[in-house]
Amino acid sequence: MKQWKSYLAGAWNEGQGDPIILHNPATEAPVAELRRATDLGAALRHARTVGGPALRALSPSDRGALLSRLAKLVHDHREELIEIAIDNGGNTRGDAKFDIDGGTAVLAAYGHLAGELGPGPWILEGEAEPIMRGSKIRAQHVLVPRLGVAIHINAFNFPAWGMLGKLAVAWLCGMPVLCKPATSTAALAARIAEILIEEGQLPEGALSLLLGPVGDLLDHVDPQDVIAFTGSADTGAKIRNHPAVVAGSVRVNVEADSLNAVVLGPDVEQGTELFDLAIRDLVTELTQKAGQKCTATRRVLVPQDRLEEVREALLERLQELASKTGDPALKEVRMGPLSTAQQLHDARTGVAALARSAERIMGDPERSEFVGVDRGKGWFLEPILFQATAEAALDPEAAFHRLEVFGPVATLLPYDGTIAAAATIVGAGRGSLVSTVYSDDRGFVAEAVTRLAPFLGRLVLADEKTAQGSMSPGCVFPVVNHGGPGRAGGGGELGGRAGMQLYLQRTTIQGGAGPLARLLGTT
Amino acid sequence: MKQWKSYLAGAWNEGQGDPIILHNPATEAPVAELRRATDLGAALRHARTVGGPALRALSPSDRGALLSRLAKLVHDHREELIEIAIDNGGNTRGDAKFDIDGGTAVLAAYGHLAGELGPGPWILEGEAEPIMRGSKIRAQHVLVPRLGVAIHINAFNFPAWGMLGKLAVAWLCGMPVLCKPATSTAALAARIAEILIEEGQLPEGALSLLLGPVGDLLDHVDPQDVIAFTGSADTGAKIRNHPAVVAGSVRVNVEADSLNAVVLGPDVEQGTELFDLAIRDLVTELTQKAGQKCTATRRVLVPQDRLEEVREALLERLQELASKTGDPALKEVRMGPLSTAQQLHDARTGVAALARSAERIMGDPERSEFVGVDRGKGWFLEPILFQATAEAALDPEAAFHRLEVFGPVATLLPYDGTIAAAATIVGAGRGSLVSTVYSDDRGFVAEAVTRLAPFLGRLVLADEKTAQGSMSPGCVFPVVNHGGPGRAGGGGELGGRAGMQLYLQRTTIQGGAGPLARLLGTT
Repeated sequence: MKQWKSYLAGAWNEGQGDPIILHNPATEAPVAELRRATDLGAALRHARTVGGPALRALSPSDRGALLSRLAKLVHDHREELIEIAIDNGGNTRGDAKFDIDGGTAVLAAYGHLAGELGPGPWILEGEAEPIMRGSKIRAQHVLVPRLGVAIHINAFNFPAWGMLGKLAVAWLCGMPVLCKPATSTAALAARIAEILIEEGQLPEGALSLLLGPVGDLLDHVDPQDVIAFTGSADTGAKIRNHPAVVAGSVRVNVEADSLNAVVLGPDVEQGTELFDLAIRDLVTELTQKAGQKCTATRRVLVPQDRLEEVREALLERLQELASKTGDPALKEVRMGPLSTAQQLHDARTGVAALARSAERIMGDPERSEFVGVDRGKGWFLEPILFQATAEAALDPEAAFHRLEVFGPVATLLPYDGTIAAAATIVGAGRGSLVSTVYSDDRGFVAEAVTRLAPFLGRLVLADEKTAQGSMSPGCVFPVVNHGGPGRAGGGGELGGRAGMQLYLQRTTIQGGAGPLARLLGTT
Repeated sequence: MKQWKSYLAGAWNEGQGDPIILHNPATEAPVAELRRATDLGAALRHARTVGGPALRALSPSDRGALLSRLAKLVHDHREELIEIAIDNGGNTRGDAKFDIDGGTAVLAAYGHLAGELGPGPWILEGEAEPIMRGSKIRAQHVLVPRLGVAIHINAFNFPAWGMLGKLAVAWLCGMPVLCKPATSTAALAARIAEILIEEGQLPEGALSLLLGPVGDLLDHVDPQDVIAFTGSADTGAKIRNHPAVVAGSVRVNVEADSLNAVVLGPDVEQGTELFDLAIRDLVTELTQKAGQKCTATRRVLVPQDRLEEVREALLERLQELASKTGDPALKEVRMGPLSTAQQLHDARTGVAALARSAERIMGDPERSEFVGVDRGKGWFLEPILFQATAEAALDPEAAFHRLEVFGPVATLLPYDGTIAAAATIVGAGRGSLVSTVYSDDRGFVAEAVTRLAPFLGRLVLADEKTAQGSMSPGCVFPVVNHGGPGRAGGGGELGGRAGMQLYLQRTTIQGGAGPLARLLGTT
């Protein structure tokens, strides 16, 4: 069986203790193993003292060229990586491409962005301003690389995209990275790290890989380090509360639960392209990656008088998907299993909880036969749809506003077609990564921006005219903000230059107008 | 005796329990009292549901006009406010003006900035970009006001500036504020709040004032709220660890301890204007507000071979200040007392701790006679100067790198004149608000920017030519970033537009190029 190893302090780490087994979630067959890594404090010191200086010795454009080269390198290994994602991730081929291509796209995009950053070693932000009216002393914001390590703790659902997306931004900023993938699906991340380390001609110390448990890693953080975490709110809270993190005011970006919503405007009629787009997107968001996406739609706001037609259209498509759920290694399968037995257990518990606030109108959480696998084998959950009453939809305590069931599970929420009601319902999720409004009513859409945006990291507006070129709202792009307030963790990643702020210190340089301009090259 | 009251949920709050007494720190005479406020959850709800909508109903330029008007209003009360600052704050007249005028300057500056923000209700950030190459779908970042309350927990040392500076930014962004001044010096903040509330024609619910202890306030925070805290690292950690704050990913900006440094370049010779400026600034930073400034200089890096001349020049000035320390109500007094008995106790304890790492070369922490006050009365500390060895200066465990003594106390640290050594010493402070480099050596200064900036929120560069128009480095301006990494709390306030980010949600609006441009008014 393949043994994956951590890469720490410039060497492959044998690890210690009993092996931790990775599985194929469709067949439950063991596929690889890894061992708990050692000497995490030394690993961080190596990254700080060797990797940081090496990366900062490169200009932003050199770092950008590195990212572009790595995007190509990962893409060259695409077929092999897809196989690993199917084998250890329960991904369909489409799911796997979504994850891997998403990762290379971020590398390429940030490689491209490097051209806008100037020659370094600092990035200018805005222009120099007099410190007060009439003064010859100027203040100029600069962004400089932080001198620590970027610790990336990634989620199990996107081993490639999560890893490469975070890496791209940190490296462009000049920070070395210690990447800790989620254990259950670590094979894909481990292989990508191996490719980068063996073939990527990385600066020494730029990348460390920590497989298995996080151990005492956080005891060793320094105020110049940065932590970017994607995963559960509980773990996010533990990181934020960690004594060394608090003592050092270590920056922590959290991307956690999200009860993303879709709002169908009252003007969206059956038979229009926009209606069809909405249904298509909903099915994609419910079933891609078996619904294990932080950006997946969980709450579907439908005007009360259109509920019937939306439900019927959805059920028809979802029934088809349900009949094609099974081993993702098979061509005819369109949805795979959840990633782990624990995920399946949690999802079933969540489905039971949702049933206390809404009616289950489709899907059997206990179904045990799926395409191409032995009965009872694999961690499968078929698509499950709930429907709430209009009254329950407005109750902020309802389970569908409180609980993210991380699988192919969503709830239809009838509303009165006003943006006021929609804002109440969306807001009851207490902060989300993304929500979407389907409407051609300009007034409705404009009000949606002011009323919904404060709860969101991203608001997607879909209309009849651009329906054709539209992308499903759960798809994240390097130029869009990824993160959301409140329950979603309060963070922000990507979004072009905005995402770089996490890894840079904003410092005002204050000095005489002439000397400052000469120093910063702004004359 | 004057009784100050909280202003919560649109009414003056009688409070409950035993009175809390405010004192004159020079004479220890009681000067005012206040009582613990009640119903803090209701106060936050009122601000959210009444104050937020009222402020957001104004355009950014209307909110800017409000700030400009309030700047004038506070300035109109300047003489009265100076008297309160002397009476309850232990401020000299100069200290009081520094605090009050600093506050009005921020109001005025953000009032002016409003003109750049567009008509609202959102602020555009950057330009719309295609979500990927060739796509007609665009992504545009917008900044929208968060829908909660800005909770401002301020420090005792700048009751006016701390309050007004934070208020200005939050209000310009469209967020209502609950302001909790430090209790010991609350009279000035309470009077300013009274002026704003009674004469400021504020939108209903825009301002709440919480006097006395914070009580159960934080139990009632919402994910849309924001907390900006200035004070001790311990209290900052408690806020960050508060269950409701963690559960809601409530944004917290902390500005805490800071071991600000000054680096005298190896080229700065006695007899130059730059040398004189450095000495003048050091004296200002050591003694203004009796050294109770978060931006005050605590560590003074001096090339080993200039140590003697710097020390002599400093001692001469400081001896003079020591002889003019006393009751700040007297004209001849140039430095007042610390704010509370506890502060004096803590400072004396800190002085004892510093003495384990450096030699005390001036100042008696137990001195008990001061100008114009009875022997043993008042919470006075005369200027105290330490000097370390070059070896101790490089020890990151030395007390002067670990402990902020919040009073007129600093340590001279000899170094070898290289920026490498200076960076090691500055970095040993684990993150500071501000540091300053005095030098005309362009290479030294350029290297200082890259090596020191990551540890700082602000880096001041002083040179011979601009020495005359220079401002002491501890002075914060609305256009400069105020905050620092690590020990300094990891936050950032002010800095012009950058400071507004705390109160705004960055949301990407994603949609078809044409409809998006029409919606956002960017066509």
